[in-house]
Amino acid sequence: MTDRLHLAIIAGDGIGPEVIGQAVRVLEAVLPSGVDYTSTEYPFGAGHYLATGEVLSDESLAALKQHDAILLGAVGGDPADPRLAGGIVERGLLLKLRFALDHYVNLRPAEIVPGVASPLAQPGDVDFVVVREGTEGPYAGNGGVLRDGTPHAIATEVSVNTEYGVERVVRFAFELAQRRPRKKLTLVHKKNVLVFAGFMWQRVVDRIAAEYPDVVVDYLHVDAATIFMVTDPSRFDVIVTDNLFGDIITDLAAAIAGGIGLAASGNINPAGEFPSMFEPVHGSAPDIAGQGKADPTAAIGSVALLLEQSGHRDAADRVRAAVRADLDARGDVARSTSEIGDAIIARLST
Amino acid sequence: MTDRLHLAIIAGDGIGPEVIGQAVRVLEAVLPSGVDYTSTEYPFGAGHYLATGEVLSDESLAALKQHDAILLGAVGGDPADPRLAGGIVERGLLLKLRFALDHYVNLRPAEIVPGVASPLAQPGDVDFVVVREGTEGPYAGNGGVLRDGTPHAIATEVSVNTEYGVERVVRFAFELAQRRPRKKLTLVHKKNVLVFAGFMWQRVVDRIAAEYPDVVVDYLHVDAATIFMVTDPSRFDVIVTDNLFGDIITDLAAAIAGGIGLAASGNINPAGEFPSMFEPVHGSAPDIAGQGKADPTAAIGSVALLLEQSGHRDAADRVRAAVRADLDARGDVARSTSEIGDAIIARLST
Ligand SMILES: CC(C)[C@H](C(=O)O)[C@@H](O)C(=O)O
Ligand SMILES: CC(C)[C@H](C(=O)O)[C@@H](O)C(=O)O
Repeated sequence: MTDRLHLAIIAGDGIGPEVIGQAVRVLEAVLPSGVDYTSTEYPFGAGHYLATGEVLSDESLAALKQHDAILLGAVGGDPADPRLAGGIVERGLLLKLRFALDHYVNLRPAEIVPGVASPLAQPGDVDFVVVREGTEGPYAGNGGVLRDGTPHAIATEVSVNTEYGVERVVRFAFELAQRRPRKKLTLVHKKNVLVFAGFMWQRVVDRIAAEYPDVVVDYLHVDAATIFMVTDPSRFDVIVTDNLFGDIITDLAAAIAGGIGLAASGNINPAGEFPSMFEPVHGSAPDIAGQGKADPTAAIGSVALLLEQSGHRDAADRVRAAVRADLDARGDVARSTSEIGDAIIARLST
Repeated sequence: MTDRLHLAIIAGDGIGPEVIGQAVRVLEAVLPSGVDYTSTEYPFGAGHYLATGEVLSDESLAALKQHDAILLGAVGGDPADPRLAGGIVERGLLLKLRFALDHYVNLRPAEIVPGVASPLAQPGDVDFVVVREGTEGPYAGNGGVLRDGTPHAIATEVSVNTEYGVERVVRFAFELAQRRPRKKLTLVHKKNVLVFAGFMWQRVVDRIAAEYPDVVVDYLHVDAATIFMVTDPSRFDVIVTDNLFGDIITDLAAAIAGGIGLAASGNINPAGEFPSMFEPVHGSAPDIAGQGKADPTAAIGSVALLLEQSGHRDAADRVRAAVRADLDARGDVARSTSEIGDAIIARLST
């Protein structure tokens, strides 16, 4: 429990500001009164970049580092806009923050709760957490192009995996698995093909497993993991995986658990050396932006993760319980972004 | 139409021999009588490796190259056997063949047909084909480990993408899309993060699209593609993607289309410079091997792809029609591998 929460808010683009508006309301409603709370809005995102040329300056990054946590909505503009090609905002802002703030744990829970429909006919009990590595792997940004634009061009992408980087995220995953009732950890990789990285991941898992004898460990190739995600998702408890595999399977996990509109995530620096960053898994959804249609549930769930990570367990539980109660009562009635926010706030226990 | 089919059969491990047995029966039942047909069995696989030390010798590879096509069951032994660690058989046999025989198209259709249950509550009309690149990308085998076994170890994996390699598979995909009623092609990649490779794939697709004005082209990030696979698979017609993304999404595609037990694939060298290789997408399933329980449908579907690729369209259609009729009539009765083979053969039209 920290008594200070100087929050940075990056509402971002598209539906980001709408969902973040509700998330901040919820946060402010549950935060214990003794906490030294401030919030500062930062304008970053595709819109800011197109207007000012800044994706994220060094000064802005330094300013963000002064905060205790970051709440982010969504960044990204019109995918067809050539000025945004090459993922300039996603990489220059979102990934830059994950790397600069050493968010080596990208935490993505997936759960089916009463009231939520899965696209699966028989989802079973879905309640697992993906611990996605956040600072290396194929996301390291290494690679290049030779003979660009010619018939003999070669493009390479280099996945970088360090013992240091793999070990710390695997250890986090074991700690998490040990705290959960089923105490099960599944390593997801593709070690029969990506043998260098895969061998490292497996060896680190094997080594650390010896320190957690009560955690049951298994392994799945990423391709097989996608099959189980749709045929038997209840087999998963904690999954630990690399940055790219984690990106892929957490979107799939969100989809089977009732939709990307509900999926929360935390980009966590566990030691607290830098602020952690919490964001819905969904994107900026420019097609529905500004219409008050976006579901703020994922953003509000990200607030619960923020509270949990900041040591405010009770407040986190209150948010989660209110979200669950709202989902359970939701039915088929279309509600606006703020109506959902209102309903969740009304359900916060005191 | 070629008048010669000198077939190489690699039944492989686990359930491989069981399913291939039925597949060969079907092939021999439909092959036009004028064809100069021979079949030669090769013993390769994990069992052969453990018994002899050979994964695939140069002589064996040279022998395989003399054939017109290869039918493969499944390779791979007990995943816990340390002698098979590092995917030695998968890489040394399966991937070696794909690379040495320049199987740059890995063709994987996904279709829900009457009688087949999808794990999705509302699958809609699933009928798409994944064209997976087969000879480069992260499968190129480049990479290494520095300071192995120390706390400072670094493992790298290098994805190699060439204009030549991307162009030929993209062109194949456009040709395929143009022959299909919906004429739609979706590029799946992760170009906002893997910018070097992603940019190359997108640029090649854009360039070749100009030659196929009647094909509608779109793009999805691989993470988003997994969402649509479970929420709206009918949006897909032809997907073209890289080797690793193709590996992942085709297992998912098989799962939503009724199971990996039905998914057929072809590793194709379109120019016919080397024999193409046809195999079920499933693995060797050691847990059910030798019990006559394995479903040979995927292997039989692979025979249909083999016939199609060899120019025997009518025979391919007969196999497909018999498989469909059998699936439609299948119900819940458990049948043995050979009973399913019998039933499909009985349904072959004359
Ligand atoms: C926007 C993109 C760079 C990002 C990622 O790939 O990590 C997103 O897909 C996510 O999962 O948070
Ligand atoms: C066995 C393995 C090397 C192979 C692959 O990754 O290509 C398999 O998963 C497949 O999809 O055919």
